[in-house]
Amino acid sequence: MKFSRRMEKFQVSDIQEILKVTARPEIISFGGGLPAPELFPVEGMKKAMEKVLDEAGSRALQYSTTEGLLSLRAKIAERTNRRTGTSLAPGNVIIVTGSQQALDLGGKIFLDEGDVVLCESPTYLGALDALKAYGPRFVEVRTDGEGMVTEDLERKLGSNGKVKLIYVTPDFQNPTGVTWSEERRRSFMEVINEHDIPVIEDNPYGELRFEGVTPPALKSYDKKGNVILLGTFSKILCPGMRVAWICAEEDLLEKFVYVKQASDLHTSTLSQYQIDAFLDMYDLDDHIERLIEVYRHRRDVMLTSMDEFLPEGVGFNRPEGGLFTWAVMPEGVSSRDVLTKAIENHVAFVPGDAFYPNGGHENTMRLNFSNTSPERITRGIQILGKVMESFAG
Amino acid sequence: MKFSRRMEKFQVSDIQEILKVTARPEIISFGGGLPAPELFPVEGMKKAMEKVLDEAGSRALQYSTTEGLLSLRAKIAERTNRRTGTSLAPGNVIIVTGSQQALDLGGKIFLDEGDVVLCESPTYLGALDALKAYGPRFVEVRTDGEGMVTEDLERKLGSNGKVKLIYVTPDFQNPTGVTWSEERRRSFMEVINEHDIPVIEDNPYGELRFEGVTPPALKSYDKKGNVILLGTFSKILCPGMRVAWICAEEDLLEKFVYVKQASDLHTSTLSQYQIDAFLDMYDLDDHIERLIEVYRHRRDVMLTSMDEFLPEGVGFNRPEGGLFTWAVMPEGVSSRDVLTKAIENHVAFVPGDAFYPNGGHENTMRLNFSNTSPERITRGIQILGKVMESFAG
Repeated sequence: MKFSRRMEKFQVSDIQEILKVTARPEIISFGGGLPAPELFPVEGMKKAMEKVLDEAGSRALQYSTTEGLLSLRAKIAERTNRRTGTSLAPGNVIIVTGSQQALDLGGKIFLDEGDVVLCESPTYLGALDALKAYGPRFVEVRTDGEGMVTEDLERKLGSNGKVKLIYVTPDFQNPTGVTWSEERRRSFMEVINEHDIPVIEDNPYGELRFEGVTPPALKSYDKKGNVILLGTFSKILCPGMRVAWICAEEDLLEKFVYVKQASDLHTSTLSQYQIDAFLDMYDLDDHIERLIEVYRHRRDVMLTSMDEFLPEGVGFNRPEGGLFTWAVMPEGVSSRDVLTKAIENHVAFVPGDAFYPNGGHENTMRLNFSNTSPERITRGIQILGKVMESFAG
Repeated sequence: MKFSRRMEKFQVSDIQEILKVTARPEIISFGGGLPAPELFPVEGMKKAMEKVLDEAGSRALQYSTTEGLLSLRAKIAERTNRRTGTSLAPGNVIIVTGSQQALDLGGKIFLDEGDVVLCESPTYLGALDALKAYGPRFVEVRTDGEGMVTEDLERKLGSNGKVKLIYVTPDFQNPTGVTWSEERRRSFMEVINEHDIPVIEDNPYGELRFEGVTPPALKSYDKKGNVILLGTFSKILCPGMRVAWICAEEDLLEKFVYVKQASDLHTSTLSQYQIDAFLDMYDLDDHIERLIEVYRHRRDVMLTSMDEFLPEGVGFNRPEGGLFTWAVMPEGVSSRDVLTKAIENHVAFVPGDAFYPNGGHENTMRLNFSNTSPERITRGIQILGKVMESFAG
């Protein structure tokens, strides 16, 4: 049987194989990116579903439009405007089957084989997975603690006529936890407003801010309709329902609607009704406030433990929100070697090189703090520190 | 902004524009393909959801595996084996976000630009929509009242080295309602068993059989693992939840899992749990029996009305199940002209040429009987007959 050429790029990654063992309960895993299930609004979702099936009934079980439920789109537009300074109408929002689908649709719409995608360095692994089906070349733009470096972006835009898409995660990035500064957002958008290149601004974590002020979305500076802003209920309600959204100008959204219709017709009608009813019945801000309290504490415990237990020469980020931090060991230490030994000692994480589309950076690692209890975080980091020490010079 | 080359193929179809007016309540529409919402198991789905959220709780709202819920996959395997003579294990089944996603994933796995897809003539429009994103050329194989004509299949396989995929709907096809005879299935599979070409056997309607005996699935004759059998809960429970499945050999399914993971991670955990619980709590065969009674009656009313009201020279199919029949007017009559006049008289249908990837056959039409009351079916066909008469030579 002959497969398409793109299938050569789809292989089981060795990391996935390694991390399979981390499902064992004795392993303290900082490897996944799961939200804490004990915080899911199980009772609220049940009440919302009862209301939907009592009131909307069979309408909630029938085929529906590809764009999604209008009242839910209106709520998303209003909330996004209030939080991030955008000016979205309900018609600027469509519902998708998780942000992963938004990335896949973005690839479908914009990319031919050999096109260039500019991304942060490192960048989100799932975006690489979605986009690689369309055969692009990934060019990493230099990225520091304030975001993508504007001068390097300009250089790479100038020297490369084949740039078709830019992918960024400016808020509590997966994997590094970094949030772009307001100044960097402005200068990035000054450059983008001079071009006609689409930018996917992926924002799954922005609402999980533990302190400080939410900066404006890149979309709020968008003068030409270049920015496609993604959001999701996965981290603020629950991921299992696969309900997320795309915000963009209407003529561009129309393209997303065409390809979404060909990809899965529409996102679950019932899930959309259920979340819409939940938002009518409960205060989402209150719910998120409870998540933040728990996640902030776990982040604090992780950073305090890292201060205490990680050896000299290991640096790490102090994110103001989200689910992840990022550690950098001395040059020459391989995080895959560290992982092998850490797993022997019942601790896991994701080696950082997986997040660099062009490889390198073997001395880095991503650490998740949202889905482990404070006690286990402390114990796990203590163990990890000892393992790291055994690799020191 | 520059789009991918494939976007040239994604345009609003004129038919979609025409059929938008059919949402008006005064229009008797035979145009859609909707199951009857009054038959959806609203109370059962509510009870199933309550059980899931009481018992599985947050597990039903968390991320889950790309393959899908094992107990649901086992039920699907058992049911498919019992109904269609296959020998599937749970590991031969994965859950997808509606059959439309299965078609999209099939295109992603098998098709490079310029590859040939063989299909029935006519064939399902939604499959053309999904596959066209991957740039194939569609070659129609001659199809009669018993299915794809084996001699023409052999000829087209022989003369065309670029055939990468075959797409068929052997049970109550959308659009024609035709079911392949057992003999034709055997001879088709004799040919396929000599090749290494994947066959997508799409079967969304097979369980809606009003009389006669269900023939074995093509998959049951599959000696080399070429056949990929698709099924869905859309027509036997409800379409709004977007839960369907793919059955194939495990090494081939692995490819589907890779691309599904990149496309939407997994299908809604909650929807999978909910349907799995529904199947534990209720008898699906009983439920389908009730659907069949209603749909059989509607089919009977439509065919009787067609006998009575359609003019001489208009032929049509007498399907033994499914949601559709198909009419052929005399050569030279354009179903688009008929549609324009029919809509003026408050009746709608889908012109048949849309189901031929290479055009032609303007004198054909698809008529849906599942989502219109018997009274309105009679009235609508009577009106359609009069409109057709006005076009008679």
